[in-house]
Amino acid sequence: MYPKTINNLIECFKKFPGIGEKTAERLALSCLEMDDETIETFSKSLKDSKTKIKKCKICGNLSEEDECSICKDPSRDKHLLCVVEESKNIILFEKIGTFNGVYHVLNGLISPLDGINPEDINIASLIKRIETDEIKEVILAVKPTVEGETTALYIKKMLEGKPVIISKIAHGIPIGADMDYIDSLTLEIALSERSQIS
Amino acid sequence: MYPKTINNLIECFKKFPGIGEKTAERLALSCLEMDDETIETFSKSLKDSKTKIKKCKICGNLSEEDECSICKDPSRDKHLLCVVEESKNIILFEKIGTFNGVYHVLNGLISPLDGINPEDINIASLIKRIETDEIKEVILAVKPTVEGETTALYIKKMLEGKPVIISKIAHGIPIGADMDYIDSLTLEIALSERSQIS
Repeated sequence: MYPKTINNLIECFKKFPGIGEKTAERLALSCLEMDDETIETFSKSLKDSKTKIKKCKICGNLSEEDECSICKDPSRDKHLLCVVEESKNIILFEKIGTFNGVYHVLNGLISPLDGINPEDINIASLIKRIETDEIKEVILAVKPTVEGETTALYIKKMLEGKPVIISKIAHGIPIGADMDYIDSLTLEIALSERSQIS
Repeated sequence: MYPKTINNLIECFKKFPGIGEKTAERLALSCLEMDDETIETFSKSLKDSKTKIKKCKICGNLSEEDECSICKDPSRDKHLLCVVEESKNIILFEKIGTFNGVYHVLNGLISPLDGINPEDINIASLIKRIETDEIKEVILAVKPTVEGETTALYIKKMLEGKPVIISKIAHGIPIGADMDYIDSLTLEIALSERSQIS
């Protein structure tokens, strides 16, 4: 019932995760009220996202150049490697501001049920990088699910006997959480991974 | 921390109503996973929304041509006019499928507190249209707020003495609503506008 252009816009918005018919309609109509410059920038950025954005050839992070800004930064410790599932996880670590190492993006986790095997994610490049770049410590920062644990175990096995420290980020009770709302699996991990205070 | 193109995309998404930092980030990253064709259509539709979409010169509805599809439809009753606040309201009425008249989009409601006076919305064109098109009935379908009531009263006053029936859509308890959750103002209207059953 809308003109074709608006219907097209609604259909485009509906393709985003978590956006239904009503929201798509609202967003499409909002476009009509935006100024020309915003729409021009939006339209151009969308196209650029397909043409300009590539993956860093070293770590797999999103970048507009062959090497991402983190890999190019000479002040970064190139011997300390943090392994993450997706490139957006890097932003989370960068927001802390204290991690000075580099990253490696797996681009997925091993999940045989979904048909994702070790060769489908960036594990081979990780192993090669650990050898050639003389990495001293690999920090596995994947989520604590079956897929995450499987991936972590696989990487650990592949690195057996190599002179590299393998660590994983701590799992437990989040800071500020109300104990009443902690699930029993998290509590179990928090209990078994307890540390001595004094 | 993201490449410039992604930051631009995030900023664009943040300009939409109800979209915050986190959602904008999620939507911008989703763009990277969409196929080229979708992004091409999206980018083009955005530009088209600025260049192709205009307002119907008769009723003010969104249209890609000078006259919208409803005004051009010869099967529509051109003597029955439904007055709405925004063009998106038309879609709601069209979804019912039983209204066969035409529309007039006010493009706002009178609101002196916000500096919106009768001359700022499409009331003059409405009055003129009622006279020249020999409208028999005007249905005021504006929302039952102070602004809506003010606008309805103003239109009613402007049409005083003219040979046209002025009506307004019914306000009351919505179908299927739980009486426990009806506000007292709605209940008051529903009570005062009660109708005899037999």
